[in-house]
Amino acid sequence: MVQFSTRMDLLKGSEIRELLKLTAQPDIISFAGGMPAPELFPVEQMMEASRAVLEENGRAALQYSSTEGHPRLRQQIAERMLAKNNIHTDADHILVTSGSQQGLDFSARVFLNPGDVVLLESPSYLGAVNAFKACEPRFIEVPTDNGGMIMEELEKILATTERVKMIYVIPDFQNPTGRTWDLERRHQFMEIVNRYEIPVIEDNPYGELRFEGEYLPALKSLDTKGLVIYLGTFSKILAPGYRIGWVCAEEHILAKYNFMEQAASLQASTIGQMETSKWIDMFDLDAHVATIRACYDKRRKVMLETLERELPEGCTFTHPVGGLFAWVVLPEYMDAKELQMKCLEKKVAFVPGGSFFPNGNHENTLRLNYSCMPEEKIVQGITALCQTIRENLR
Amino acid sequence: MVQFSTRMDLLKGSEIRELLKLTAQPDIISFAGGMPAPELFPVEQMMEASRAVLEENGRAALQYSSTEGHPRLRQQIAERMLAKNNIHTDADHILVTSGSQQGLDFSARVFLNPGDVVLLESPSYLGAVNAFKACEPRFIEVPTDNGGMIMEELEKILATTERVKMIYVIPDFQNPTGRTWDLERRHQFMEIVNRYEIPVIEDNPYGELRFEGEYLPALKSLDTKGLVIYLGTFSKILAPGYRIGWVCAEEHILAKYNFMEQAASLQASTIGQMETSKWIDMFDLDAHVATIRACYDKRRKVMLETLERELPEGCTFTHPVGGLFAWVVLPEYMDAKELQMKCLEKKVAFVPGGSFFPNGNHENTLRLNYSCMPEEKIVQGITALCQTIRENLR
Repeated sequence: MVQFSTRMDLLKGSEIRELLKLTAQPDIISFAGGMPAPELFPVEQMMEASRAVLEENGRAALQYSSTEGHPRLRQQIAERMLAKNNIHTDADHILVTSGSQQGLDFSARVFLNPGDVVLLESPSYLGAVNAFKACEPRFIEVPTDNGGMIMEELEKILATTERVKMIYVIPDFQNPTGRTWDLERRHQFMEIVNRYEIPVIEDNPYGELRFEGEYLPALKSLDTKGLVIYLGTFSKILAPGYRIGWVCAEEHILAKYNFMEQAASLQASTIGQMETSKWIDMFDLDAHVATIRACYDKRRKVMLETLERELPEGCTFTHPVGGLFAWVVLPEYMDAKELQMKCLEKKVAFVPGGSFFPNGNHENTLRLNYSCMPEEKIVQGITALCQTIRENLR
Repeated sequence: MVQFSTRMDLLKGSEIRELLKLTAQPDIISFAGGMPAPELFPVEQMMEASRAVLEENGRAALQYSSTEGHPRLRQQIAERMLAKNNIHTDADHILVTSGSQQGLDFSARVFLNPGDVVLLESPSYLGAVNAFKACEPRFIEVPTDNGGMIMEELEKILATTERVKMIYVIPDFQNPTGRTWDLERRHQFMEIVNRYEIPVIEDNPYGELRFEGEYLPALKSLDTKGLVIYLGTFSKILAPGYRIGWVCAEEHILAKYNFMEQAASLQASTIGQMETSKWIDMFDLDAHVATIRACYDKRRKVMLETLERELPEGCTFTHPVGGLFAWVVLPEYMDAKELQMKCLEKKVAFVPGGSFFPNGNHENTLRLNYSCMPEEKIVQGITALCQTIRENLR
């Protein structure tokens, strides 16, 4: 008889992915996904990069290549991490993965036995929770405030919890809340982590998409004990369609990720890596990111202005200074899943927030994405959402 | 303190991948890899397919897409499985993966708890063993003869073994031996499997590369109880650089693979899938496979003729009728790893066979790949290999 493994009892389809199917009709105003704006993809330039790769090096591009990744790309990633995140590293400390989702999966498999404890922000990225679940850990949610993870709470949990094997955090423009940790909190965090010597997974897909204020150093750049494993991706600054992400970590840790990659998929796409690398060499990634930033900033402003104007009393929302998401907390009695069904009738979609809490509850929350809709649709959609909330106030 | 999971104790780098690094110098005659011949890649045509995808549908190609895979590609895969393997299926039963290595990884994770038993041919594909190891199973090697797995032995093991959760097989032109199961054995196998109701992973990367004799039906085409999970790939018939493979299985099983894919990497490369699909629509995959077949057939013949002529008495080798590999058994006292070191001095490389046996031993075996070297190099390299063997006879 066909018997599945116990891990399969824990894995369900991502609610977001299911919801995205519902929202695929073109007339839906969707704040549900976390996708980059496709109208900003440099399609013409990608054609040039692709032609150059196949012309200059076609056979190599279509062949198997090393597990570690394309050498030139790893070098470009290392240079970019220095320029943007003040992380001093080199190509030998980079492993290219099939999107940073694969980096999340590998992180779980490198560190977690069933029953081990993962600490994460409450709420946290659903895709990470899903990847970790396949290793059957216990999740402990660290309380947060508007500045992100609360360090006193982290300290308390670490002081009283056995088997904490890793801490997963998104310090910049977090998914789903849009919150960012300030510099003091980053230093506090590293001080605590250094004391307990727990590996940290720093997930930074949105770091370059800052609209206001100063760039803050990545945790990895403050890491003196080699505890931080940094996950990066080209999905939000170039294009997700290639599935190119990376892991940056100390050598003895990265070696384990490398073994996982060999077992899991041998390597990331050779041609995808080479085209990404070639595009970076031929064109101006900084200028491209500036274009993305300008576009999302406008959309964010419109969303926040509309929320400010339309969201009924008793509800709150975050004020992200970068990234793709804002987060709304409804009155406690309100269920965002029910709200979602009512909004779908009005052709407006978002993600109910409950699934971002691995241990459940918080059904009165929701996530809004602003990167994918033009401004007039944002006004229209947020107005309809707020109207629906108003209709359901007690 | 950084503590890795117990599965990491079992995972080491693939010896082949390490060896391939040693053999990357251009003057090495390498029979070590399992790579397709790069000179046959349709580079010019791929440029056309790539341009067409980006011109017609660039934004979609660079964006996220569904976990299941590109709809047109899944349809093409289903059609090809009918045409080539007599498997009646449809797009809904296909999940596109990042190479069939990812299908192997998902198979382990869908079915295996630590300590569960996997049955496989002795020897079997190292990459599968490596993928399965990450789930900490027990391997039982089913004895084989020149016709593949011995069904009486399989039956005996099934009758006396608890916790058998899956059976992994490569019935066509097996890696590493090049052996193929005949029709009778396929029927016997399915009869036994149906009785015990154990899921079967049928890995078929080489099936289309048959040089002689008739195509034999895939196990999946003989599957009346929905027990066979079929893994396919474009790596050997088109190009491995895109990392595009697939899983074909019953709906309730495929759903589990889908959850694993969501957790592990969200989806295979959008643009990689679309370019593969476009190439198949624009050009002639059958004609392309015929070209590959003709080329490998010649190389195989030259390798087998040279082995026939040069291999000393006391050694045996297989006579593959398709695929990429032949398998040599040396006298029992000879160690193929030591032989490898001596051959590397003569600039000849192969893979020592011991690592294809998950439970060890059989150090007097080796795998030879013939797809990647021109004929004169094959004569030269096999002659040198046989010479070295002769020098080390007792």
